[in-house]
Amino acid sequence: MGFSQRLREAWRTSASLVCVGLDPDPARFPTPLHGHANAIETFCRDIVDATGDVVCAFKPQIAYFAAHGAEAALERVCEHIRREHPRVVLILDAKRGDIGDTAEMYAREAFDRYGADAVTVNPWLGTDSLEPFFARRDRGTIVLCRTSNSGSGELQSLRTTDTSEPLFETIARRAANEWSLRADVGLVVGATQPAELRRVREIVGDLPLLVPGVGAQGGDPASVIANGATADGTGLMVNSSRAIIYASAGDDYATAARAAAVTLRDSLSDALRETANGRVSRRP
Amino acid sequence: MGFSQRLREAWRTSASLVCVGLDPDPARFPTPLHGHANAIETFCRDIVDATGDVVCAFKPQIAYFAAHGAEAALERVCEHIRREHPRVVLILDAKRGDIGDTAEMYAREAFDRYGADAVTVNPWLGTDSLEPFFARRDRGTIVLCRTSNSGSGELQSLRTTDTSEPLFETIARRAANEWSLRADVGLVVGATQPAELRRVREIVGDLPLLVPGVGAQGGDPASVIANGATADGTGLMVNSSRAIIYASAGDDYATAARAAAVTLRDSLSDALRETANGRVSRRP
Repeated sequence: MGFSQRLREAWRTSASLVCVGLDPDPARFPTPLHGHANAIETFCRDIVDATGDVVCAFKPQIAYFAAHGAEAALERVCEHIRREHPRVVLILDAKRGDIGDTAEMYAREAFDRYGADAVTVNPWLGTDSLEPFFARRDRGTIVLCRTSNSGSGELQSLRTTDTSEPLFETIARRAANEWSLRADVGLVVGATQPAELRRVREIVGDLPLLVPGVGAQGGDPASVIANGATADGTGLMVNSSRAIIYASAGDDYATAARAAAVTLRDSLSDALRETANGRVSRRP
Repeated sequence: MGFSQRLREAWRTSASLVCVGLDPDPARFPTPLHGHANAIETFCRDIVDATGDVVCAFKPQIAYFAAHGAEAALERVCEHIRREHPRVVLILDAKRGDIGDTAEMYAREAFDRYGADAVTVNPWLGTDSLEPFFARRDRGTIVLCRTSNSGSGELQSLRTTDTSEPLFETIARRAANEWSLRADVGLVVGATQPAELRRVREIVGDLPLLVPGVGAQGGDPASVIANGATADGTGLMVNSSRAIIYASAGDDYATAARAAAVTLRDSLSDALRETANGRVSRRP
């Protein structure tokens, strides 16, 4: 079963579009974990187990592990997710991008070492740098299209002379018309850019979109649904990291994380219902 | 002493523009290392010690370590380079690129964990994604401008409607006019694109360029010098990985690597002399 099929199953069984981002920063850990020997692994496992039945995806951000020399903890967290929450999709957020031989090593890192269902990648080096990821037909490649940070438009929204369309649309078009024909491809589009999210959805049909930027970064769940959901009410992995994993700094951090994930799941579901009602009421 | 000052010192004391890329792939290791317990670390240390006095820089490619779960070996190799070859610049080839909080974690990975003098980064997410690297004033940030792979022009050479210049020139101009005013910045420009290398050099003045693509990828050392060297005969870190580190598959792999590095150093020096003579002879 490939990535997008696993993702459709996860959407169906969880009835949730929520992706929980695992960005473990010891400086922000809840009090009970201060001074804890395996704090990073324990924190991630607790968050994962508290939210596993209300989400469609987990997205560990490898930078937070790498900064602390905690790759072994990341291996164990990924193994735990695959074993204990097998229907939840595992996305390694690594934003890799390198020339062919090196990209092959990054594909091994993401898919073989960490066992990820999909990995985020950077398109700046061109299609040949993505081929080693595309070649893994049972895994997904999620390409950075229009990111959620304030400076993302600096390159991504520049218009090119050949098509007059912004670069992120060039990426979306290539994903829809070329890459998705021979690989299991998704795109990253930030919740902080609703008009761009709508435009990408128009271009890519039903391709899955990973949407960061709700919660701490200020993106609005209702807007994400209105602009990004597919006709069947899926198509999205709506990521929240800090607003969920740091919902409480006390003993109740796991239950608080669950409550925050449920709140986001419900606000997305409410928005889907309202969008559906809007569609119905707009019928002649 | 900051990155570019350290690099100038390395150029002066080594009289070499060669950067040795450390891409340790156990599948290509020389026979004596087959089945060796610490093969990755031993191989890298042997190459480093054999070439340390004839190069200006070492560039470990983190993907090759990550694919094999060998971050601890990379830590030890970096420590070995800093201790035994203190005048050689250490560049971590990681091509990182992420939003601010995450990029800060990648800066810690490169500069604190591995102690790199400089790190390669990807500009696709915009200037704010580079700020955490720029903020480390004693370290260098080497931005991917025009890479050496065959598909690099796919995005990097698209022309934008505002300036009609290709994107890689936009990056070069931004490096020269903005980033270098407040950070220690270099650029990656592939040896496989001589005209683009010349154009970047015209735009960025004396900024250091990391030039991959000679050797196995087919770039020509004389062309790199003619198009990329600064007036004082420096400005370049000319990287070769496979042609040096896999120069021999036998017991003599270290001495063969040294010989290959010396050959590249000399061909670059010869090209510099010819360019200088050419300049003299063209005087009226």
